[in-house]
Amino acid sequence: GWVRSIRSQKEILFLHINDGSSLENLQVVADSSLENRDLTFGSAVEVQGKLVKSPHRMQNMELQAETIHVVGPCDIWSFPLKMKQRQPLEYIRQFPHLRCRSNTLGSLLRIRSEATAAIHSFFQDNGYVHIHTPIITSNDCEGAGELFQIETSSGARESAEKTHFFNVPAFLTVSGQLHLEVMAGAFTHVFTFGPTFRAENSQSRRHLAEFYMVEAELSFTESLQDIMQVMEDLFKTVTSTVLSKCPHDVALFHKYVSPAQKSDITHKDFFFFSCRISYSEAVEILKQASQSFTFKPEWGCDLQKEHEKYLVEHCGDIPVFVINYPYDLKPFYMRDNEDGPQHTVAAVDLLVPGIGELCGGGLREERLPFLESRLQRLGLTDAYKWYLDLRKFGSVPHGGFGMGFERYLQYILGVDNIKDAIPFPRFSHSCLL
Amino acid sequence: GWVRSIRSQKEILFLHINDGSSLENLQVVADSSLENRDLTFGSAVEVQGKLVKSPHRMQNMELQAETIHVVGPCDIWSFPLKMKQRQPLEYIRQFPHLRCRSNTLGSLLRIRSEATAAIHSFFQDNGYVHIHTPIITSNDCEGAGELFQIETSSGARESAEKTHFFNVPAFLTVSGQLHLEVMAGAFTHVFTFGPTFRAENSQSRRHLAEFYMVEAELSFTESLQDIMQVMEDLFKTVTSTVLSKCPHDVALFHKYVSPAQKSDITHKDFFFFSCRISYSEAVEILKQASQSFTFKPEWGCDLQKEHEKYLVEHCGDIPVFVINYPYDLKPFYMRDNEDGPQHTVAAVDLLVPGIGELCGGGLREERLPFLESRLQRLGLTDAYKWYLDLRKFGSVPHGGFGMGFERYLQYILGVDNIKDAIPFPRFSHSCLL
Repeated sequence: GWVRSIRSQKEILFLHINDGSSLENLQVVADSSLENRDLTFGSAVEVQGKLVKSPHRMQNMELQAETIHVVGPCDIWSFPLKMKQRQPLEYIRQFPHLRCRSNTLGSLLRIRSEATAAIHSFFQDNGYVHIHTPIITSNDCEGAGELFQIETSSGARESAEKTHFFNVPAFLTVSGQLHLEVMAGAFTHVFTFGPTFRAENSQSRRHLAEFYMVEAELSFTESLQDIMQVMEDLFKTVTSTVLSKCPHDVALFHKYVSPAQKSDITHKDFFFFSCRISYSEAVEILKQASQSFTFKPEWGCDLQKEHEKYLVEHCGDIPVFVINYPYDLKPFYMRDNEDGPQHTVAAVDLLVPGIGELCGGGLREERLPFLESRLQRLGLTDAYKWYLDLRKFGSVPHGGFGMGFERYLQYILGVDNIKDAIPFPRFSHSCLL
Repeated sequence: GWVRSIRSQKEILFLHINDGSSLENLQVVADSSLENRDLTFGSAVEVQGKLVKSPHRMQNMELQAETIHVVGPCDIWSFPLKMKQRQPLEYIRQFPHLRCRSNTLGSLLRIRSEATAAIHSFFQDNGYVHIHTPIITSNDCEGAGELFQIETSSGARESAEKTHFFNVPAFLTVSGQLHLEVMAGAFTHVFTFGPTFRAENSQSRRHLAEFYMVEAELSFTESLQDIMQVMEDLFKTVTSTVLSKCPHDVALFHKYVSPAQKSDITHKDFFFFSCRISYSEAVEILKQASQSFTFKPEWGCDLQKEHEKYLVEHCGDIPVFVINYPYDLKPFYMRDNEDGPQHTVAAVDLLVPGIGELCGGGLREERLPFLESRLQRLGLTDAYKWYLDLRKFGSVPHGGFGMGFERYLQYILGVDNIKDAIPFPRFSHSCLL
């Protein structure tokens, strides 16, 4: 393991060694004669000795060292991490190759790993087929924001007129949904969990250019309720697993990283999802708010961050499902509620305290004529001929959702900046390593 | 589910319905009066009735239908998949949005999903931390082949002189190894399982532009033997799981897709890994071969596909580890064996019948002076300053490997073309959907 602290007391040397398996260190007790020049904070060591029951109440076991071998020394003067210092996350973000050695990022990455495993298990246990939806896609007109385009590195240097590697322009995916819908025509339950990309020039604490999304699609599903139930079950199951597998890591966040924030994974809020309002109700709530907003709430307009924040507070600072959004606000694949001529669609967003939108989903328009006329009006009929095929051949009512994985981690841990919820953050002007 | 077959007999209607949960269909028995125009092959149906023990020995249960509702009809004349026809994989590859509805791709995707889950479980059960290594990276000089470069889609249309979204040129990753090595400085065992990219203009049946790789890195490991052991354990555990969870799906491949090939997952070969030879021995074997090669085998040259094939046959058509490759053949991070002045490095490739290279790995050069002088000679010292830092601060002996996931599936199932081992294949001149 690596030396996390070192202390000489009389003739005894105390070391704390960590091998990354948990936040807790192993205490090593040695004769001070074993101390040497290379034995410093950050150095890698191999210790041989006897594991004994510790006399101290803070730990169960300690290692009585017979030999200490410094495998890799560490120059503490140039090493950016310092012993016994809780350095700010902004500071350690400058060292993407070393920050995983800090307690905070170590805990974050262990939690992230457990949450990843729990997500796979949740879906597998519920009979979902896992699909690797493609990263490179020729679909470019989903309207989910600015895209990244790809070229061969030799091609990129030449004129843009040359032929493309794939013959067609190719982009990094913004969502696996449409590809999951392909699979929902053969498997009743499918999911994907992979990277998605947005080329937005945002420096917000909630946006990355490369982030992970969990997406699921359910066939033979006719109600938004079913979709919301899966969102809720996923959230609860994964959060319970993380809580039981990484109690110390989670406690570190709640104690040191976000003590002032409401985020407390053990609080009942995390397991309380009963607030469900329609978009129309949401707009009414906002209109009647005593608070004044920068963006005036108006039926037919997107909910802004300030609106989401107010709604969550209004509902008692718990997760809130907002359903049935205006038809014109949502993409072509959302299912028309037929509550008026193209009035609302069966879409749902999950808003959570401190973050805003955590999940988005809905029922998909499975009825060929509705979809055809909408695509025609948008001039997308040719581009989505393959998508129309899914409705021509054995179409079924279905729906699904996506959850931003880093936002989920931000929410359960109270991590202020999304850049600290991913091992190697990519955002505009920054792609370190 | 979806109708897979339909048969009228006297006054009885027999349907086979499939919901994607397994290769096996559910037999539905109905009064022929329930037949209607929309009830065709490929249509989506909801059937209500009684599940009873089947009188036929081919199935346990059947459904005695009371009502059959066609949720989504299917125009069998324009539907590219046909009833009772085993269409060639090349044919169905033309329909990336429908091919998952064929038996073969259905089985492949269920197996792929189980293998994915088994890989996550294997590493989690063995104490590995899962890391999402980045897809977009600014490292461009690993020498693992032609890269894809990314730009914002608006930027791509303009001059190449403009500023980059990330300020620096950015590429799609060819491997998560270097980023895993960062993590191996904090966690003893780490792994990643994600997409990797090569822009090679290859139409081979073993190459994709976008493919999945399982990669692991182990700290405090001083022997290639340890790395090979993990490769072997991973292979055996995942294969056993797939075999026990998807016996019918696997049987379909061995019966219909690759009957002539040696690939039989139940055969002992799959669990027999005892052949380990050094690169030098391999070259000697090739030199003494009675067979003549297009590329003359010579110490210091890469093993060609024809060589790999011969070596595997020579060893008895079983997986073969080849170790200790020439120093100059391998990337800068491979550990010098010091068996001569820069003679060989501790690298290992796993060759398997029918495929060739399935895994590649090795020990990494953990000794700062060795690494510094090698990077200096290559003129890469500045680009890899961060990588040298990993050796300056608490460096440890470590190593790891990567396994191509689609090649793994090709191998265990006997899939001839790698394009049929991934849901949405991307290769030069092709990026459908």
